[in-house]
Amino acid sequence: MAQKPSIPKGTRDFNPEQVAKRNYIFNTIRGTFKTFGFQPIETPSFENSSTLMGKYGEEGDRLIFKILNSGDYLAKANAEAYENKDSNKLTGSISEKALRYDLTVPFARYVVQHQNEIEFPFKRYQIQPVWRADRPQKGRFREFYQCDADVVGSKSLWQEVEFIQLYDTVFSALKLEGVTIKINNRKILSGIAEVIDASDKLIDFTVALDKLDKIGEEKVKEEMLSKGISQEGIDKLQPLFTLSGTFESQIESLKSILSASEEGLKGIEELAFIDAAIAELGLTAATLQLDVTLARGLNYYTGAIFEVSAPKDVKMGSIGGGGRYDDLTGIFGMKDVSGVGISFGLDRIYLVLEELGLFPETVSKNVEVLFINFGDKEALFCLKAIKELRHNEVNAELYPDAAKMKKQMTHANRRNIPFVVLVGEEEINSKTYTLKNMVSGEQHKVSLEELVSKLS
Amino acid sequence: MAQKPSIPKGTRDFNPEQVAKRNYIFNTIRGTFKTFGFQPIETPSFENSSTLMGKYGEEGDRLIFKILNSGDYLAKANAEAYENKDSNKLTGSISEKALRYDLTVPFARYVVQHQNEIEFPFKRYQIQPVWRADRPQKGRFREFYQCDADVVGSKSLWQEVEFIQLYDTVFSALKLEGVTIKINNRKILSGIAEVIDASDKLIDFTVALDKLDKIGEEKVKEEMLSKGISQEGIDKLQPLFTLSGTFESQIESLKSILSASEEGLKGIEELAFIDAAIAELGLTAATLQLDVTLARGLNYYTGAIFEVSAPKDVKMGSIGGGGRYDDLTGIFGMKDVSGVGISFGLDRIYLVLEELGLFPETVSKNVEVLFINFGDKEALFCLKAIKELRHNEVNAELYPDAAKMKKQMTHANRRNIPFVVLVGEEEINSKTYTLKNMVSGEQHKVSLEELVSKLS
Repeated sequence: MAQKPSIPKGTRDFNPEQVAKRNYIFNTIRGTFKTFGFQPIETPSFENSSTLMGKYGEEGDRLIFKILNSGDYLAKANAEAYENKDSNKLTGSISEKALRYDLTVPFARYVVQHQNEIEFPFKRYQIQPVWRADRPQKGRFREFYQCDADVVGSKSLWQEVEFIQLYDTVFSALKLEGVTIKINNRKILSGIAEVIDASDKLIDFTVALDKLDKIGEEKVKEEMLSKGISQEGIDKLQPLFTLSGTFESQIESLKSILSASEEGLKGIEELAFIDAAIAELGLTAATLQLDVTLARGLNYYTGAIFEVSAPKDVKMGSIGGGGRYDDLTGIFGMKDVSGVGISFGLDRIYLVLEELGLFPETVSKNVEVLFINFGDKEALFCLKAIKELRHNEVNAELYPDAAKMKKQMTHANRRNIPFVVLVGEEEINSKTYTLKNMVSGEQHKVSLEELVSKLS
Repeated sequence: MAQKPSIPKGTRDFNPEQVAKRNYIFNTIRGTFKTFGFQPIETPSFENSSTLMGKYGEEGDRLIFKILNSGDYLAKANAEAYENKDSNKLTGSISEKALRYDLTVPFARYVVQHQNEIEFPFKRYQIQPVWRADRPQKGRFREFYQCDADVVGSKSLWQEVEFIQLYDTVFSALKLEGVTIKINNRKILSGIAEVIDASDKLIDFTVALDKLDKIGEEKVKEEMLSKGISQEGIDKLQPLFTLSGTFESQIESLKSILSASEEGLKGIEELAFIDAAIAELGLTAATLQLDVTLARGLNYYTGAIFEVSAPKDVKMGSIGGGGRYDDLTGIFGMKDVSGVGISFGLDRIYLVLEELGLFPETVSKNVEVLFINFGDKEALFCLKAIKELRHNEVNAELYPDAAKMKKQMTHANRRNIPFVVLVGEEEINSKTYTLKNMVSGEQHKVSLEELVSKLS
């Protein structure tokens, strides 16, 4: 006998219930994207390697899945690399395509390639899988979906305001209360680095600051010192470590810290604008919180930085994030296209909803009624009713074989089908249907019209 | 300046209108799958190579996209193949995964792997992309979607009846009238080969017969002769070439041709059963037609064979197909699981609907109303109304920048947004909104309630 088949590590099969639950999240996000005026695009699963390579750093390049060229691919293999058995150097000559690693670089490529057909500002959303040759672990997969919305071609801060509302609308629709939307601004981080005279150490500085939650104040300071940031500079940072109170009061504290930095003050002004607008518009499921330690992919972002945390009682990393980037399309030669975008982490949102029991019971409802099959004559009579039910959007099916009744009833039970219909000679003669409720056990003879109205 | 980026040949970007039109077809098919009691599953984009290789013939193996192993993949390269620069032999040692080639083999793998969790008969649908390293041409791509529905675990012919109804329901919903569902049965082809004493040449025989439409009767006969089928046998086939009339009368002719073949008569009985049931249940958009020349992937099918043709006035190959296979999961060591399934050809259905102008006008409706941005104070006032509109599922947006009014109006026009709202100081003071119809040019001052009710 053949070996029982399996799937590659880090990938997943989804059964009907899982697909239904995932689609519930996708549809909620998609529906909200639409009401906010975002339009869908889709890009190919694989891109030319030149489009992807070099865009995610050295580590990213390594994690990109490469597709082997077709045919006699060794004919064009780089001779030197081949001789030296240098995998790394050989790859480019035997692989021209690669699976996309995220949706952002393909989107940048799309905007540049189709710039003449696009009406700017362009608000697009994209919900597609991406692939990474990462070491699989809990909640980390080699194939997973990203749900992104971005606007390109406008520097307006109203977009940031809209994205915060969008997050809130999605989490409200998912009934996921207590979400925190953390916000920061790259200009504030640059400003702080500037006032402590560490502009040249911006990355080291923010990497250390980003760890405040995990390692605490003292360790952060040690790390900064070890990276060459002066004690005097670190002393100036002291107010940062004790920032608290409302968004507005934190803004005030930051203003005094950053009074000497024009860029820092600009960042504060942006945050204050966003906060004031959100205060006016209101949030339902989420809270907006200033977090000056938030850095994410700092090199990437130029203005606002977002990160969304699950409700406090759920142990889970961020369930979304995003920010403003002023030069998304520059990598493909199109300058001065500012963009801002956010992403939803489907897999983590799924785990959170599962943990909190927030999936609606109806989400994996599949078949509402199974018609028991007593033989060909009865089956044909049933199929006429089934046709009518389906026409009224009732999910209905006939058990395919005239198997023993017990087997058919067990099938209905195992699949949680709430109703069965029994049709024998008597029903055919009187043109009726015996409808049985599988939960209560009650059963009634009904006409076709009654059947349709009861199940619709 | 960087080179303008591009995508690999045979792949496609989809713009918002195309995504909307594709989703219209997907949603129609998915909705019908559901009312017929099918449940969704999803499988990973790539499988272990061993799952896919050898399942599609030599040509198929060649067309499967292989994924290069990560890291120092040459370390495990087959030494002999490497020395001989034998691409074909080397592949297996530097690539362990491959992109799926269709949805059928992954489905078979899924059924075997999850057999203990599955309640049989199992009706599943699957709508996912597949990849083939085929030479791209009009209507043929390297990445394309398949939409499959299959039932495994029942030999009941009612499934065949249901699939014909399913096709009809989908094409009715798409308003695509005049579709022909061609049906044949593998047992009839075997029976014919048997009576002309060419059972050992079944493939040659059906390959030739399959060409009747394209090359005509004489050429088909020549080909059969050249493949070693006797003149006497070919003479016996004569009635096949002139089969005509109703489904029933063709069945009668076939009965006389196949009177000596038990298997052939079984095939006729099956077809007659299906035809009688369909005659009782009725079809709306499609016609069922017997086509004894229909063979498709003959080795695969064991009973019914389906193929769907577009309406006659559209030049297009088949837009769907399927059939019964009695040993789907045998390749993975699970015996005696009969299956029957059908597939929809998304890309071709798209082209047909486009050619016949059958996409509903509303399909690519995106944003219903754009709020003109006259400045921050006005924008905030607008966003409060926009929030209310979105809450009522109206797709609404604010122009992000306080640009010149003409620019904003042009933006609304270019995007075919049917309404704009203008809010200046007067409107803010009177808490009203000036709603302008972009088609008629009419405009009225309305309250928030009126705005919501007019646009909902």
